[in-house]
Amino acid sequence: MDNERYERGWEKLKRIHGSEGERFIENVKSVAPDLARFIVEFGFGDVYSRPGLDLKTREIVTVAALTALGHAQPQLKVHIQAALNVGCSNEEMVEIMTQLAVYAGFPAALNGICLVKQVLEDIEKKRT
Amino acid sequence: MDNERYERGWEKLKRIHGSEGERFIENVKSVAPDLARFIVEFGFGDVYSRPGLDLKTREIVTVAALTALGHAQPQLKVHIQAALNVGCSNEEMVEIMTQLAVYAGFPAALNGICLVKQVLEDIEKKRT
Amino acid sequence: MDNERYERGWEKLKRIHGSEGERFIENVKSVAPDLARFIVEFGFGDVYSRPGLDLKTREIVTVAALTALGHAQPQLKVHIQAALNVGCSNEEMVEIMTQLAVYAGFPAALNGICLVKQVLEDIEKKRT
Amino acid sequence: MDNERYERGWEKLKRIHGSEGERFIENVKSVAPDLARFIVEFGFGDVYSRPGLDLKTREIVTVAALTALGHAQPQLKVHIQAALNVGCSNEEMVEIMTQLAVYAGFPAALNGICLVKQVLEDIEKKRT
Amino acid sequence: MDNERYERGWEKLKRIHGSEGERFIENVKSVAPDLARFIVEFGFGDVYSRPGLDLKTREIVTVAALTALGHAQPQLKVHIQAALNVGCSNEEMVEIMTQLAVYAGFPAALNGICLVKQVLEDIEKKRT
Amino acid sequence: MDNERYERGWEKLKRIHGSEGERFIENVKSVAPDLARFIVEFGFGDVYSRPGLDLKTREIVTVAALTALGHAQPQLKVHIQAALNVGCSNEEMVEIMTQLAVYAGFPAALNGICLVKQVLEDIEKKRT
Repeated sequence: MDNERYERGWEKLKRIHGSEGERFIENVKSVAPDLARFIVEFGFGDVYSRPGLDLKTREIVTVAALTALGHAQPQLKVHIQAALNVGCSNEEMVEIMTQLAVYAGFPAALNGICLVKQVLEDIEKKRT
Repeated sequence: MDNERYERGWEKLKRIHGSEGERFIENVKSVAPDLARFIVEFGFGDVYSRPGLDLKTREIVTVAALTALGHAQPQLKVHIQAALNVGCSNEEMVEIMTQLAVYAGFPAALNGICLVKQVLEDIEKKRT
Repeated sequence: MDNERYERGWEKLKRIHGSEGERFIENVKSVAPDLARFIVEFGFGDVYSRPGLDLKTREIVTVAALTALGHAQPQLKVHIQAALNVGCSNEEMVEIMTQLAVYAGFPAALNGICLVKQVLEDIEKKRT
Repeated sequence: MDNERYERGWEKLKRIHGSEGERFIENVKSVAPDLARFIVEFGFGDVYSRPGLDLKTREIVTVAALTALGHAQPQLKVHIQAALNVGCSNEEMVEIMTQLAVYAGFPAALNGICLVKQVLEDIEKKRT
Repeated sequence: MDNERYERGWEKLKRIHGSEGERFIENVKSVAPDLARFIVEFGFGDVYSRPGLDLKTREIVTVAALTALGHAQPQLKVHIQAALNVGCSNEEMVEIMTQLAVYAGFPAALNGICLVKQVLEDIEKKRT
Repeated sequence: MDNERYERGWEKLKRIHGSEGERFIENVKSVAPDLARFIVEFGFGDVYSRPGLDLKTREIVTVAALTALGHAQPQLKVHIQAALNVGCSNEEMVEIMTQLAVYAGFPAALNGICLVKQVLEDIEKKRT
């Protein structure tokens, strides 16, 4: 049955993070195979696979939390991309950072907006 | 024109936080009148009044940020109530906290869920 | 098989946190039954049940993290008690807080030491 | 010579925190005597006794840091009182919290302003 | 009247952050024009323009908060430079970081001191 | 006697951090000589030299705290290396990060595991 949790999680992870997510898990696996497995089984197989919130709202929650925490910039960049992957618009990402300026302070919001800019530029580059 | 920002903000604040929000602003005003004014003008008149995100999504962003920060439990309780006021369901609040366990850790999520429980019990008490 | 994870987790939780831990899970269950289940299955069934670190070291890691985070005082108190339950001495708890003053600052360490004092006084009260 | 550090620190602590500070150190001493000694020797004997910043500026630095960290409300209250003891005006304390709204977010600033209000009310009570 | 807030803010921003600050706002404007406007209007036009604290003290508050938060190193570097721009001495910046070691821990203070060193080296380079 | 504290601290620092630690202190000394001295005297001479916890446990406490704080990645890398220097195994470092996923969230744990990977690769490189 844990096999089922892993497979369900792996499908969800690919849907949200694409091939970049797969590479990240492979990277973690090389040093901490069980931690990599827990991300897939628990994070994606148990939590992201739940009904009750659509993927877009789950990514908004995650982006807001990571922006407020402030110390997880690599993950924040990945989740800004993921939020766009599952249906957020560029304008919504900018609004989320603007809203966060009130609650987490301008520096956290500005670090977030700089990552939004990087992600949008990366997308633009790939397109051309 | 700042008068306009204040009035727009005050209407928004009443819509989101109700009479409890009004009392809180009065309380801040007694020691820091301009900080109270900035909350209304900037927080509610400028930011919450923007299009681009509906009020429900703005409250989800706020609840996620405050849960992750962990140090603003009184405000988190107020914003859990506000999220319910503007259209979140009880089940969505529980899902948000479950999602946050992955990103902010179980203690932050559990502190959040305890406040959700308190807010739901307060609502139940008022009803009866 | 998840049943196995739950049962393994529940035994571990009782070993570490005693009846207070059981009551806490029941409390979470009343508002967020799946989050309660994830704590038992993932937190205690998957992570705490692993070999590689003994329970005493796991609790030292947890106490250090919660003291540094600073925003999870109820959980910190519970884990100071848990650390004593699984073999930490009073003197070791004091040393851990002293070490943390260097890395997390004196206020975080002093909030920790005040909780150590409360836990030791609670133990003393129960004894008499 | 450490005796000298302790005595210099103790005088400084009494100057900044008054009898409340002495009681707090006694309280810490009952469970962690060396941690209490390090606060006096290092915190007050080494750091607070340095030239280069006057006591008022040192307390402004401390109040700003504790407000931003957010997790040390008991210490923040004590240092708001200390800032007033060494020459800050009520108006300056309010301005500091207003400034912090921009950098640490409104919730941290509002938690700070609520403590300023409590300290000012405590002073008022003692006067009457 | 908001035009007035913007212009007052823009003058203040140039006074504090110089041409580097102007470039940063332009950068934010390219992705989030209203967030850039809020920084100028609210951050600099409303807050930094207030009487009650001189610019030097406002920058000390900001540097202390950012050092304690720890997650906003780019902004901390900019504000160390700003503090020097509005009258702080090199020695005062070092003292502030030393004071913060007590309250935010040595790692946060050492990250701060490394940025102080970088800023002083940048100034030295420009001079030669 | 402070000379004694310094020398005891310097020996301890060399034992824990090796020549990289010496270089770091020299670097801090160039801009903030007294802060560098306090690290040696207080951090290593007073705290790390205490009995009551062995060096391995002290480093586990430090690694857990820095991982949870999240904002001190350079120091975390140095202390992962230090933990290995004083007797932690690679497997224990991986287990500590796995345990922290529960309490500080997966992003903090994953940032930690990436640093563990870097440290292990650095060691591998030096060996060949």
